[in-house]
Amino acid sequence: MTHRTDDPRRIILDCDPGHDDAVAIMLALGSPAIELLGVTTVGGNQTVEKITRNAQSVLEMCRRQDVPVHRGSARPLLREVHVAGDIHGESGLDGVELPEPTVPVAAQRAVEFLVQTVMESEPGEITLVGTGPLTNIALAARLEPAIIDRVREVVIMGGGYHEGNVTPVAEFNIWADPEAAAIVVDAGWELTMVGLDLTHQALATADVEQRIAEIGTDLAEFFLGLMAFFRRAYQENQGFDDPPVHDACTIAHLIDPSVVQTRRAPLHVEIRGDLTRGMTVADLRPGTDLEGCRTQVATVLDAEGFWRLVVDAVRTLG
Amino acid sequence: MTHRTDDPRRIILDCDPGHDDAVAIMLALGSPAIELLGVTTVGGNQTVEKITRNAQSVLEMCRRQDVPVHRGSARPLLREVHVAGDIHGESGLDGVELPEPTVPVAAQRAVEFLVQTVMESEPGEITLVGTGPLTNIALAARLEPAIIDRVREVVIMGGGYHEGNVTPVAEFNIWADPEAAAIVVDAGWELTMVGLDLTHQALATADVEQRIAEIGTDLAEFFLGLMAFFRRAYQENQGFDDPPVHDACTIAHLIDPSVVQTRRAPLHVEIRGDLTRGMTVADLRPGTDLEGCRTQVATVLDAEGFWRLVVDAVRTLG
Amino acid sequence: MTHRTDDPRRIILDCDPGHDDAVAIMLALGSPAIELLGVTTVGGNQTVEKITRNAQSVLEMCRRQDVPVHRGSARPLLREVHVAGDIHGESGLDGVELPEPTVPVAAQRAVEFLVQTVMESEPGEITLVGTGPLTNIALAARLEPAIIDRVREVVIMGGGYHEGNVTPVAEFNIWADPEAAAIVVDAGWELTMVGLDLTHQALATADVEQRIAEIGTDLAEFFLGLMAFFRRAYQENQGFDDPPVHDACTIAHLIDPSVVQTRRAPLHVEIRGDLTRGMTVADLRPGTDLEGCRTQVATVLDAEGFWRLVVDAVRTLG
Amino acid sequence: MTHRTDDPRRIILDCDPGHDDAVAIMLALGSPAIELLGVTTVGGNQTVEKITRNAQSVLEMCRRQDVPVHRGSARPLLREVHVAGDIHGESGLDGVELPEPTVPVAAQRAVEFLVQTVMESEPGEITLVGTGPLTNIALAARLEPAIIDRVREVVIMGGGYHEGNVTPVAEFNIWADPEAAAIVVDAGWELTMVGLDLTHQALATADVEQRIAEIGTDLAEFFLGLMAFFRRAYQENQGFDDPPVHDACTIAHLIDPSVVQTRRAPLHVEIRGDLTRGMTVADLRPGTDLEGCRTQVATVLDAEGFWRLVVDAVRTLG
Repeated sequence: MTHRTDDPRRIILDCDPGHDDAVAIMLALGSPAIELLGVTTVGGNQTVEKITRNAQSVLEMCRRQDVPVHRGSARPLLREVHVAGDIHGESGLDGVELPEPTVPVAAQRAVEFLVQTVMESEPGEITLVGTGPLTNIALAARLEPAIIDRVREVVIMGGGYHEGNVTPVAEFNIWADPEAAAIVVDAGWELTMVGLDLTHQALATADVEQRIAEIGTDLAEFFLGLMAFFRRAYQENQGFDDPPVHDACTIAHLIDPSVVQTRRAPLHVEIRGDLTRGMTVADLRPGTDLEGCRTQVATVLDAEGFWRLVVDAVRTLG
Repeated sequence: MTHRTDDPRRIILDCDPGHDDAVAIMLALGSPAIELLGVTTVGGNQTVEKITRNAQSVLEMCRRQDVPVHRGSARPLLREVHVAGDIHGESGLDGVELPEPTVPVAAQRAVEFLVQTVMESEPGEITLVGTGPLTNIALAARLEPAIIDRVREVVIMGGGYHEGNVTPVAEFNIWADPEAAAIVVDAGWELTMVGLDLTHQALATADVEQRIAEIGTDLAEFFLGLMAFFRRAYQENQGFDDPPVHDACTIAHLIDPSVVQTRRAPLHVEIRGDLTRGMTVADLRPGTDLEGCRTQVATVLDAEGFWRLVVDAVRTLG
Repeated sequence: MTHRTDDPRRIILDCDPGHDDAVAIMLALGSPAIELLGVTTVGGNQTVEKITRNAQSVLEMCRRQDVPVHRGSARPLLREVHVAGDIHGESGLDGVELPEPTVPVAAQRAVEFLVQTVMESEPGEITLVGTGPLTNIALAARLEPAIIDRVREVVIMGGGYHEGNVTPVAEFNIWADPEAAAIVVDAGWELTMVGLDLTHQALATADVEQRIAEIGTDLAEFFLGLMAFFRRAYQENQGFDDPPVHDACTIAHLIDPSVVQTRRAPLHVEIRGDLTRGMTVADLRPGTDLEGCRTQVATVLDAEGFWRLVVDAVRTLG
Repeated sequence: MTHRTDDPRRIILDCDPGHDDAVAIMLALGSPAIELLGVTTVGGNQTVEKITRNAQSVLEMCRRQDVPVHRGSARPLLREVHVAGDIHGESGLDGVELPEPTVPVAAQRAVEFLVQTVMESEPGEITLVGTGPLTNIALAARLEPAIIDRVREVVIMGGGYHEGNVTPVAEFNIWADPEAAAIVVDAGWELTMVGLDLTHQALATADVEQRIAEIGTDLAEFFLGLMAFFRRAYQENQGFDDPPVHDACTIAHLIDPSVVQTRRAPLHVEIRGDLTRGMTVADLRPGTDLEGCRTQVATVLDAEGFWRLVVDAVRTLG
């Protein structure tokens, strides 16, 4: 028996909050279509220590201390550690005051939590969502290869078929651990890449902020504080007017597939180039054989639909 | 004294005819805005022996045996030789009967002709147009570095910032000799890359063929024979309905810059990736510093304007 | 408190038996200086399924079914699986009849056994010996980085500073999973590379076989059967007269450091070259700064001392 | 008709003097077995401007202004320029006063001189000796591939099968332009690599200097001045007691093959590794197929025989 598809999606969110990861967490918690089984953390936007505390703080803000947080990888498989302090600040969640966690970090390592949760669930039950460097998910796939056939699918925020940020053609999460990303993308499970091509359409405009402000809760304030910092960072470092809330697009895709259009394409990660290390290479040529292809890339966002989901989630969380 | 810009552009065409190279030659010969000083050949679409004969035959068809043909590189700097027989056929110009050359190949090697012509012209007088692998132009730049400051500009058909053909992200001319392309693109001269992003807009549709057919000359017939073969090759190998006449876009750009929109961007060639070798990497990120940038990429084609130039040229050649 | 150095060395042997791994197991079990806490397996000389059964069979032959066998990685981190069937045959231990295991494989995964054993022992107590591809040890170091400071040292058979086998400059174990090897060699723990430079001195000559034959036990017969096959494989595939018993040299080094001379040198693994992928690069230049260097390479074997240890071990095992 | 082998060897020396290149020039000029047709220069130990002047000055010192000097490549094919100022000083020949050249640099570019000389000589007549980065020779082979079958052989100082200097596994000349070296080594002509394995045996000891001093000429003084500087550079930067006179070993090999033992081995240049870029990879494994192999590596120097040739040459030059 496989899992029924009209139940809430049972997901593990592997992330590095991070302003947009925080929105992803809120969206997951605030939507009835998603059941968040746990949060696993990975060094990326900041060190894994800060990231882990940030994940706890966001759950605290959402009053969902029941969701376990499992600390994961402090460093990439092979590359040196790089954090994105210019984008996410010293704490990784600059711009807001972070509440003290009231629940300790779970004892089990992130990778072992990922493996155990998948192996003890039904085949096709668990969806893995990765919004940071993919070190944990890669390690899980190598520690217990049986998870590859057992997960329902993997959805990642990372990469881009035509866009880059940290380099002209590479996005931070993939670039930060390209070997892990190669393992995850090539594993053979059903995988959706929600890359910069899509997420650069998810801009937190003044209009969006206005709608969030009208909710009037502490969480709405928290959201606005995050966005205020994030906007400045994107203006100063990336030449953007409004900040793109990348990671939340993965959750939106799971809640309502019509919000995120995708296109099937062979997808691989470059781990060796001088100029292209960490690039996600999608084969979008006309006539490419898609028989047996298990990877797809996100292309067009229904921005209005996306923000409706986010606003609803923040309102629902109260 | 620098060259006056309203004189015809004095160009050397370094090419590997090739169906679309043949159209480039016709366009150059048939336009009063261009003075074609010589044709240099390079192995690419076919072996340099076949390519050289093809160049002579096209000049013969155009009754311009006065334009010298200089044989160039038989092989890339480092890679093994690959020809594009699936696209251009056994001869490199399959689909037409090629007239016997009546004038021999010039004695001087292509690279030395390139160097000597540039060095004996005024600074800023000569434009180099490359529509094949860039081996000859790279060798010229290394044999006599003084040409780099002395040429007016270099315009190449090759690469693509978002498109590939021989691989998902690499175009044939660059992929065939990536090290040569890296030398040419990084040399420091003013360089325009007319890549697949642009040339895939230059489709020889049925309407275009109708207009050529109405000219009614032997050369028009020759053109149509080339396009008939090229269409089938693109349908069978590339998933296209109509064939893109890549190389002629470089000449169109020189005749009338308004036909080919360009955008300035830092540009480099990947010579090392596993998946990306031969990719042209353009930095199109918002906020990229363009100060001192001497490379630009072609973006949007005025297809009607382009074909008007081609039809006029074929008609002019009689 | 650190572990006393005159106790038997407490080791975990991570291996892929394999003829020479089998000798390593015998030497470890037959020497009072070694306490073998467990055997972990990794795909390499053959598939991990065959390897794991081989490990059990060798322990069975030695009547040491009490030593647990933990199945490990079936594949490298990134590369495709390659096995060394030309050297070790269809079974991975061709040339002998393998006894049926009477004890099942341990339930715990190899990587988790490695991590747990190190974390539950005293700092400086456990030595990891790797004689196959280093996938398991690399995964352990990334799953629980705290083991890096906690192990006593890591001794690997693999690589070579001047010799290769599978390529001119790469040895099979490193070449089979270069990224894992890079993780292990760069981890920062004390590491000794016993490479081909040393192990090609450990030749099982006719004289050695004669001494083993004189022991007259079933195990001695088993040893001779292994060597007979191994000799033919090395004669036919590697141009050797006698087979080098690579892996056992790691154990000999631990039993009696005087048997294996070493030299301190910065050591790294090439993961990217076209010709050198999987090469171990040791900096042996005069004047190289060795301050803080935690890697050493084995240089000269006392072959007589080595074989005395092996013969004694086979005799002791009865 | 091929060239008679008992005539003097007609060579072109492509070099970057450089202390040891200077000795190579003296040895070539002072030996009746060598006819030096010309010196071509290449940026390496210093910039090509300084190198070219140094070549002229050394010829001046030897009173052989009749040997033409052709200026060659200022930079590598792809890499940035690096000079070896720490080894050869600011001038490239620090330690002596350089006489003013009385004859201008030849008008013809080095690459074209190489090509023309080979093409206008008999097949098998000309030997190319390269003791700097191989940019010129690579360009010549690509400008006129017919030289590949026409030269007698190519002898290079560069690389090493077990030794490096600028990196643990790469020698300066190859590392400075690895792509050029790959072109030259893979070209298919008969090629001897006189690498560091051999040249580190050619040490200018106190005894050698004593023998040179006894000659008592200005040129002997010049030689001693060069060696005094070179010794200090090697002591301070390379951990050597005495300086190795690398480049002269190529000429000694041509004068008397018994002085330089060689071994046939497949040889290639790594152009891509992270740690191994510029390494020369020789396949020295037992059992390697040498059928059709046209590359050999120098292994053992008869140091006494070598220095006898050098001392004789300096004496002969008067």
